[in-house]
Amino acid sequence: MSYNKTANITAETINPRVKTFNYEPCGEIARHAERLQEELNKNPGSRPFQEIIYCNLGNPQALGQRPITFFREVLSLCDNPALLNRDEAHLLFSQCAMKRARKIIEAMPGRDSGPYTPSQGIKSLRESIADGIAGRDGYPSRPEDIFLTDGASSAINLTMQILIRSEEDAILCPLPEYPLYSGSILLHGGTMVPYNLSEDGDWGLDIFEVKRCLEEARISGLTVRAMVVINPGNPTGQVLSVTNQEEIVEFCRKEGLVILADEVYQDNIYVDDKKFNSFKKVARSLGYTEDDISIVSYHSVSMGYYGECGRRGGYMEICGFGEDVMGEICKVASLTLCPNIGGQILTSLVMDTPKIGDDCFENFLAEKESILSSLAKRAKTLEKAFSSLEGVTCNRIEGAIYLFPRIHLPAAAIKAAKTEGVSPDIFYACRLLNDAGIAIVPGSGFHQISGRNRAAGTYHIRCTILPGEDKIKAMIARLRAFHESFMNEFRDRS
Amino acid sequence: MSYNKTANITAETINPRVKTFNYEPCGEIARHAERLQEELNKNPGSRPFQEIIYCNLGNPQALGQRPITFFREVLSLCDNPALLNRDEAHLLFSQCAMKRARKIIEAMPGRDSGPYTPSQGIKSLRESIADGIAGRDGYPSRPEDIFLTDGASSAINLTMQILIRSEEDAILCPLPEYPLYSGSILLHGGTMVPYNLSEDGDWGLDIFEVKRCLEEARISGLTVRAMVVINPGNPTGQVLSVTNQEEIVEFCRKEGLVILADEVYQDNIYVDDKKFNSFKKVARSLGYTEDDISIVSYHSVSMGYYGECGRRGGYMEICGFGEDVMGEICKVASLTLCPNIGGQILTSLVMDTPKIGDDCFENFLAEKESILSSLAKRAKTLEKAFSSLEGVTCNRIEGAIYLFPRIHLPAAAIKAAKTEGVSPDIFYACRLLNDAGIAIVPGSGFHQISGRNRAAGTYHIRCTILPGEDKIKAMIARLRAFHESFMNEFRDRS
Repeated sequence: MSYNKTANITAETINPRVKTFNYEPCGEIARHAERLQEELNKNPGSRPFQEIIYCNLGNPQALGQRPITFFREVLSLCDNPALLNRDEAHLLFSQCAMKRARKIIEAMPGRDSGPYTPSQGIKSLRESIADGIAGRDGYPSRPEDIFLTDGASSAINLTMQILIRSEEDAILCPLPEYPLYSGSILLHGGTMVPYNLSEDGDWGLDIFEVKRCLEEARISGLTVRAMVVINPGNPTGQVLSVTNQEEIVEFCRKEGLVILADEVYQDNIYVDDKKFNSFKKVARSLGYTEDDISIVSYHSVSMGYYGECGRRGGYMEICGFGEDVMGEICKVASLTLCPNIGGQILTSLVMDTPKIGDDCFENFLAEKESILSSLAKRAKTLEKAFSSLEGVTCNRIEGAIYLFPRIHLPAAAIKAAKTEGVSPDIFYACRLLNDAGIAIVPGSGFHQISGRNRAAGTYHIRCTILPGEDKIKAMIARLRAFHESFMNEFRDRS
Repeated sequence: MSYNKTANITAETINPRVKTFNYEPCGEIARHAERLQEELNKNPGSRPFQEIIYCNLGNPQALGQRPITFFREVLSLCDNPALLNRDEAHLLFSQCAMKRARKIIEAMPGRDSGPYTPSQGIKSLRESIADGIAGRDGYPSRPEDIFLTDGASSAINLTMQILIRSEEDAILCPLPEYPLYSGSILLHGGTMVPYNLSEDGDWGLDIFEVKRCLEEARISGLTVRAMVVINPGNPTGQVLSVTNQEEIVEFCRKEGLVILADEVYQDNIYVDDKKFNSFKKVARSLGYTEDDISIVSYHSVSMGYYGECGRRGGYMEICGFGEDVMGEICKVASLTLCPNIGGQILTSLVMDTPKIGDDCFENFLAEKESILSSLAKRAKTLEKAFSSLEGVTCNRIEGAIYLFPRIHLPAAAIKAAKTEGVSPDIFYACRLLNDAGIAIVPGSGFHQISGRNRAAGTYHIRCTILPGEDKIKAMIARLRAFHESFMNEFRDRS
């Protein structure tokens, strides 16, 4: 494409912050995987595999996960409320979906799902969500603290826009990190201060290490305003222990940091000895109120057993900001007028699911359990498979939808990567894709390697547990064969 | 609400740009109207009217405008694609809605409406939109130039984020303006350079006036990057003449400015002697390609005869930016992952409506014509009513959904306003609300009065044409009585 030389809108003349940050939820491997699949479609015999197995993206429904019927029925009815008055609708929709849709529509301005809503979201839906949070935590939640958003990422971006005043304002973020954080912090003109998660400590965090990072940042003149914690973890798949969460709460309270709690995987837990505890619950159980500590909790409809990524629904619950700030947040939110109504409705459904006695309850529960138990099974299978590979260690996957195994690469492989001018984890990932048709994300995509990172020199890959059980089986067979041949090629001979 | 004193997140400690900008799509009058309505609900006899008539908000469906059946049917089916395989669905949905939904779903990743889409939007939908634009303009449009967005406001914010590097970067904006522009420019750290629309010239613009503003800005050290044009106009309701549009194209081409064309009211035209012409069409018809002039056109599903505000759907078509910039825009868009799928689908429907021969065509056309002809009738009625009032002049409403009459306020009224410490247009608006139960937006909400504005000292109100025909009738009766009594109270005795 050419461009108008007069206005001269090129990458050199736009906002430099836009150029600075690096964010590729897909990245080069994803693009290469697409090209490979196209090549395979044209010329099926060209590779030793027929199709790419995608273990790179956290996009469940793109890989065959089915949506929850109740959620889709309610959305469908709310989109077309005229159906609620048609007798034939009972042939196609469950009673409880119709009841819920009617309740939602009746509480809406204009009794339809078409108008703008308040920028903070529809009040009745925020009430359902607050009730859901209170039920989950056993501590009260207020609808006025809830902001409905177009997914968690919009909420995170909005928070950074509010908190960051200049590049002297910093946010503590875990490494490895979900790169939305570093991207958003840079775009909004702030500084990211990384802290290392401890691979040896089940990807939990060593609070002394965080304290060290905070102090170093302060000495260098930064004002650290908040600490991001992702629990369950992305890309690391851990569930923090309550003890670890308590340490974080005490630390942030003492140091005056806002906890930015990314809790979007709260429904994805696969082990019996851990459960999800929100940071708010942990803080309240320690006796701290919003006067003592500020917490923002993010949730979305994209993950869990729902996986409704494209709907762009989510909320943030903000506890402990000044009331004047809540007004300012509303003002910024109003620049995009309101979150989309479908996402708002779905967020309320996720936090207020069918109850025993509802005609759709059995079916809802069966669908939910089926998805979660299959995810748990796939998690276990993949964890075992990775752990059995030569030179690969893999922490237990406790939650979220990712494994983050460490690949102990032979010196010859590291040398070969250097020759090709790429990071060794990328080298491994490219070979895995080209030779075995498996797409994963190299650990460096999560800034696993950084100047400040004591874990530099370790190599990881992030692998989702999302392909169906059959595909996981095929994937493991391919992975085993590939890894053996890779190691045979590069194994240390010393 | 109290707040955590340690973290100290107050309006004084957040991003100062957030505090600076002023954006209230509703504003004080809207809040007061809500309070009044609550008071009336509790105590019906407390005022000389039973209900507030809302002429303040551009939110059609909140005021009773019905959604287009075809659009809602398709959305409903896409939300719940399982319906497409059910025989009973034919009892509830038209053939052509089912056909369209099937086509949309089949082109989607994962063949469902759940997954993340590309950040730029689903390709097949962008293709439909590009075809729609090409059909409208008679000039080609390319899907790769289209970015689907969560409504036009998201697109406008994204553009400002890309174009603005520092406060020395400026954007030319009309006065009176839709205040999203000034808000977004300030939030993104730039400077707004206002130019006056000419009330005497049917709210068109005098290109010499714009040139004067540009030169003044340049002398003061600003780099003016773009010019915003809203056509049809908000709050002014004009449709620019082709001659005026040609002048703007020539001017922006010569001066190296991007045209940011807010064309969200393109389907709202009420006069026979004007039609909508996109700026791209005007530029192409003058022989200019994207090498000569850069144009961004914004459209949304919120206005027109569709009025689907809460759906948050829209697109921007970007012509004449460097290809590298398109990549950077994708990157920023990917920070919120993707626009919501419902909004994407609806945007494609608005640009690719049922055709002759489709079983729902007659019904679609009847619904569309009914809404548009009623809006035209209400526009005419209100224009006549305002024009007949003492001291009120009202330009012809040609398009959009607003009238912007000028109120020539008597000196005593201006003095009374001063005593109350409010702007005279706000004084009039408050009295109109309190005495007659009519909510409108005072002209100063559109920055009609500003230091640079030669029109300072003139007073306007923005009145939508959205209440139903019966309500408009009631509103006019109340308006007449109020205005007469207001003038009797304040009329100049000299």
